[in-house]
Amino acid sequence: MQFYRLAFLLLFPFVSIAQNNDAETVRKIHEHILSKGMCYEWLTNLCTQYPGRLAGSAADSGAANYTKSVLETLLPDTVYLQECQTLYWERGDTGQIFRVLPDGDLSPIMGLSLGRAGATGPNGITAQVIEVKSLDELERLPDEEVAGKIVFFNRPMDPSFVNTFRAYGGAVDQRVYGPNRAQKKGAAGALVRSMTLRIDNVPHTGVTVFDSGQMKIPAFAVSTKDAERLSKALTEAPVYVYLNSNCKDVGMKPTYNVIAEIRGSEFPDEILLVGGHLDSWDVGQGAHDDGSGCVQAMEVISTLQKMNYKPKRTIRCVLFANEENGLAGGLEYARVSKEKGEFHLAALESDAGGFTPKGFSFEADTSVFKKYYKAVSQFLPTFEGYGLYFEMGGSGADISPLKSQKGLLIGLRPDSQRYFDYHHTTIDTIDAVHERELKLGAAAMTSLIYFLDTYGLGSSTTQNTESGTH
Amino acid sequence: MQFYRLAFLLLFPFVSIAQNNDAETVRKIHEHILSKGMCYEWLTNLCTQYPGRLAGSAADSGAANYTKSVLETLLPDTVYLQECQTLYWERGDTGQIFRVLPDGDLSPIMGLSLGRAGATGPNGITAQVIEVKSLDELERLPDEEVAGKIVFFNRPMDPSFVNTFRAYGGAVDQRVYGPNRAQKKGAAGALVRSMTLRIDNVPHTGVTVFDSGQMKIPAFAVSTKDAERLSKALTEAPVYVYLNSNCKDVGMKPTYNVIAEIRGSEFPDEILLVGGHLDSWDVGQGAHDDGSGCVQAMEVISTLQKMNYKPKRTIRCVLFANEENGLAGGLEYARVSKEKGEFHLAALESDAGGFTPKGFSFEADTSVFKKYYKAVSQFLPTFEGYGLYFEMGGSGADISPLKSQKGLLIGLRPDSQRYFDYHHTTIDTIDAVHERELKLGAAAMTSLIYFLDTYGLGSSTTQNTESGTH
Repeated sequence: MQFYRLAFLLLFPFVSIAQNNDAETVRKIHEHILSKGMCYEWLTNLCTQYPGRLAGSAADSGAANYTKSVLETLLPDTVYLQECQTLYWERGDTGQIFRVLPDGDLSPIMGLSLGRAGATGPNGITAQVIEVKSLDELERLPDEEVAGKIVFFNRPMDPSFVNTFRAYGGAVDQRVYGPNRAQKKGAAGALVRSMTLRIDNVPHTGVTVFDSGQMKIPAFAVSTKDAERLSKALTEAPVYVYLNSNCKDVGMKPTYNVIAEIRGSEFPDEILLVGGHLDSWDVGQGAHDDGSGCVQAMEVISTLQKMNYKPKRTIRCVLFANEENGLAGGLEYARVSKEKGEFHLAALESDAGGFTPKGFSFEADTSVFKKYYKAVSQFLPTFEGYGLYFEMGGSGADISPLKSQKGLLIGLRPDSQRYFDYHHTTIDTIDAVHERELKLGAAAMTSLIYFLDTYGLGSSTTQNTESGTH
Repeated sequence: MQFYRLAFLLLFPFVSIAQNNDAETVRKIHEHILSKGMCYEWLTNLCTQYPGRLAGSAADSGAANYTKSVLETLLPDTVYLQECQTLYWERGDTGQIFRVLPDGDLSPIMGLSLGRAGATGPNGITAQVIEVKSLDELERLPDEEVAGKIVFFNRPMDPSFVNTFRAYGGAVDQRVYGPNRAQKKGAAGALVRSMTLRIDNVPHTGVTVFDSGQMKIPAFAVSTKDAERLSKALTEAPVYVYLNSNCKDVGMKPTYNVIAEIRGSEFPDEILLVGGHLDSWDVGQGAHDDGSGCVQAMEVISTLQKMNYKPKRTIRCVLFANEENGLAGGLEYARVSKEKGEFHLAALESDAGGFTPKGFSFEADTSVFKKYYKAVSQFLPTFEGYGLYFEMGGSGADISPLKSQKGLLIGLRPDSQRYFDYHHTTIDTIDAVHERELKLGAAAMTSLIYFLDTYGLGSSTTQNTESGTH
């Protein structure tokens, strides 16, 4: 028994009766998934058979076919692939970075080309490094100090934030826009300190964005350990590095949203979407980002089917294509949905890792948010019993284009402490995912979908609650 | 912003004003520990320099001296060791278990002698295995079916519980009492399925209890993978195993509670204790169990000192001796405290692993619990902002002898999913502890001690709150 739960019952005393059945259903959902859930097994297959699922790659389409075939075994009403197109960028060789020592020797730096970065040409480039801590600091430098140099963005993520996503949000502008800004000032290349709170040898890739028609310069993430070494060396003498990379934009390629649906019996036109994104970066296995979210969404469908639950509303599992570098899947899904005149009452995405769930984050168009907020707050006591909170905030990139439908957008919020240890790296592999933590996320998602299906978001109960609290 | 927090503010509107300062202090505590905390470094030293801190061992006393010396650098008012005596049991050689195959070949089984178990003698023993799923099932067997056999307790922990400690609580009677009951029915030895939810090759030791004067039989934990294999083999044909172990009770040895105290300025006789236990099993490094709790308690003292906080009440850090097999440290501490006529207003123990904190669990004598419950519930809104809950329940083994002082006993409740992957094994090592997760636990503990020191547990504010809620 938890203290704040008591407080809540004082506010909504009449809710507690109705929730006895709900509590039992949620308990059964947890029991089923923890003892018989399949999501970890599916994730193992996805990671080991289709690692590096960069949108448009063979692994990406293989993963779409694999997950489609698994979803078919769960016997939902429909399962299909939705094709869209993405610009396919290829890393080519691994890419190399060396510090050129005063005697001409080369000292290796752990690095990875950023996604959609430019290449060096076959002979590589050697240039002097200048370090900045922010885009603003770069802007203030005279162009002639930047021209021909390699700009090194080295502002660390701030460890003092409890939520690591806030620390990421406070540093990632360097990776996304740094190379672009550096090029505009004439830089020959860019290095970006990896987006992680650990000090280690693991470089973290991720997208970097050039303007349409802008010349793409080579740009690498460097490991935090090497970033610290490089920064120290810069305090002592001029530093030169040698870069070599042959990554390139190959052209447009097809990629696929995987969609499975259980048709609602009473309100089939109110869609409850649950999803993650199937693509990953080309390094590692995309285990936490975001194989976890995909198999959790599949587990929602699986659990409802195995518990023989007949939803009132349409429940749709969507494994989105191309979240990492283009959002083609999310955009195409929303476009087709709009064309069909669909309404997503709620969309829930898991894209923050397969760690122990801590809660859900809700967003919606301001015209409807307050109404939805009151409706979901009725579900909270049951979730609090599982240590889960509700908060206002973001949801997920893939479902964000659905916002104009004025439904409720929801993000699963797992414990964030370890996410950026693995994010966009070679070590985001199945052994970094804990089976029970992954399953608890799936159970939390299934429980929320159950509540949304049972009560909707604008029922008369909500009206009662409103009057009850004033 | 979290929904249930809003609800709480409705109940305690006048508290929210006072808590602006508190919220800022708690934020600073988190910021300090996450960016400058020392606990992970101390834990690294403790684990690598003093692994296997079985009470009475050289590693145990070395750890006491090491932590005492660290605490001295923090400049509290007093730091000292409190000696007590414990029966020292020694594992001797690693111990061996083999399945004897029909052709006489030996197939190794991953196992570890249980703590305080008996030995086989130098030649080992070979006997037939009988499997039971519970102590009751054993009781129902005729003695002649048990005599001379090796009883194999093989009821798994139940994966359907969300909280793994409940699953542990539902299975650990087999390890604690199984060998005792088996011996009373004439068994030659006992095997116990390891207490973990994973299926792997890692045996988990832990204490087993024989009556005073009872003959101790050899008793081993076996890995879950081998438990499953053994169980399968038993369905096919009689199974024989060979056991060899030379563990023994050596005799009484000294062990030490490590105590550091900051004297209170206004209410020095109201003690706020924060602690963990310094001893561990002899295998592994005792990183999660319970080096983590010790360094977190040390971090509380360190943080208050570095923030230049002058407590009103006496804050005492206690690293208890001998929790794992005797509780000599906790008992001696309570005995001396009683002799001195001390009053522990609250005692907070961390002994559930160095994982992301999820909340606190509170217990007290029934005559005072309700009063304390109301007092601490005032602190909750601030903690909810960090995703932490309060619940009624147990606290910690070492502080439990203080219950008769009628103060509040508190247990830190970290995420429990991974704890039993490591508990009492060779793999409970520093690399299984995540620095930020450990530090968040220390920050939660420091924050709670700050509230307890600032507001106590029976202030006039509590009275106001009572009238405000009715």
